Amino acid sequence: MKTIQERRTIRKYSDRELSETFLKDLLSKAERAPTMGNLQLYSVVMTTDSENKRRLAPAHFHQPMVENAPCLLTFCADFRRTSLWAEERNATPGYDNFLSFMNAATDALLYCQTFTYLAESEGLGTCFLGTTIYNSESIVNALHLPRLVMPVATLTVGWPAEEGVPTDRLPIEGILHAEKYEDYTSERIDRFYFEKENREENKHFVEINNKETLAQVFTDLRYKKEDNESMSVSFLATLKRQGFL
Amino acid sequence: MKTIQERRTIRKYSDRELSETFLKDLLSKAERAPTMGNLQLYSVVMTTDSENKRRLAPAHFHQPMVENAPCLLTFCADFRRTSLWAEERNATPGYDNFLSFMNAATDALLYCQTFTYLAESEGLGTCFLGTTIYNSESIVNALHLPRLVMPVATLTVGWPAEEGVPTDRLPIEGILHAEKYEDYTSERIDRFYFEKENREENKHFVEINNKETLAQVFTDLRYKKEDNESMSVSFLATLKRQGFL
Repeated sequence: MKTIQERRTIRKYSDRELSETFLKDLLSKAERAPTMGNLQLYSVVMTTDSENKRRLAPAHFHQPMVENAPCLLTFCADFRRTSLWAEERNATPGYDNFLSFMNAATDALLYCQTFTYLAESEGLGTCFLGTTIYNSESIVNALHLPRLVMPVATLTVGWPAEEGVPTDRLPIEGILHAEKYEDYTSERIDRFYFEKENREENKHFVEINNKETLAQVFTDLRYKKEDNESMSVSFLATLKRQGFL
Repeated sequence: MKTIQERRTIRKYSDRELSETFLKDLLSKAERAPTMGNLQLYSVVMTTDSENKRRLAPAHFHQPMVENAPCLLTFCADFRRTSLWAEERNATPGYDNFLSFMNAATDALLYCQTFTYLAESEGLGTCFLGTTIYNSESIVNALHLPRLVMPVATLTVGWPAEEGVPTDRLPIEGILHAEKYEDYTSERIDRFYFEKENREENKHFVEINNKETLAQVFTDLRYKKEDNESMSVSFLATLKRQGFL
């Protein structure tokens, strides 16, 4: 089994067949993840059909692994199943609200990451697509997600056809606070971001994008204020449409 | 190493010392979890001081493990550090919006679950406290969380002093959908919830609470509509106070 330090995001997959039985077994094992009241407030939609992958591709900005991976898993916050169960049992569910969305999103993400860990332990490669929440409405449409179901994460899964690239992480002191939040001074920022800013590939990144600093690559190109603001509006609109707001 | 199927939530901890070096090493290893643009949009506050645990206890409805566990870890969605970094580097951050909160909450939860998995692999016991999002304002106050930092999950951690109780999970067919969401019929609900509803402890639960069905225990007692609605209001108010709305 690979250790956690060796894990890499895998975006290229081999032709080796990915057995559905094997995947289902891993998805079943991952159900042991913590979940609110053992209710498992999530669902997963598995996409293996090429036509259906193509339908999801625009939502993920046509990143090539969406169509090239043998399997896409869309993890959804799901209070619908629990609510239908309640209605069938003479109980009145009250989960059409924001807190319930947060509970269900939490469950879905803990489940997703447990699956990732298990899949990688078996040698599978995965790529986490954060784009799921950028274009949630088109995913809702593509997967026919009903009220009280909201997509929160997508993984591409397959047998790796690349090694993957090791990426930088902050020193643990950069994220861990003892007893209370210790705010970041200019000196601490310099120290914690030193390694990141001095990696060759990150310096190269700054250069080819004609920026002064690595941070500008993020703020001006990758994760821009205007995009975040317009995607906030559309995410909240989808949450409303799905009955959580 | 314990397998995932053997994992149990652990609420009682032994007196065995929990080494801070060991914990920090696990928290450091967990940083390999997927994260948006390698930005690691999270922080963790570690609480070991008794007085500080006592301060957090009301937010977690005084569940006994909060004061009895040797360590509490509060996982926070954190766009503050990244924003300060940007400001120090002549870049203009645009992360005071809802989408950025979702990105950071996602990062924090994936990180939290990776840590849980590693900690449990080493024999530690953990309990995930969903209460973190129920009373976020008092956690913000207790931990001095500044703008653009929002608590999303808490773990109690320690060496187990109990076996833990195996809990029920739905059959994989109950959560997995092929190609598109297949809505739940009455027949499928009956099938998927059969085991849960027929477990002795769940039947006992219905009986001692004087309810007709297990679902009513959830809707009428454990997760009530009026509580969810009032906690939605306070969570959104805290999100606003922390600058994400």
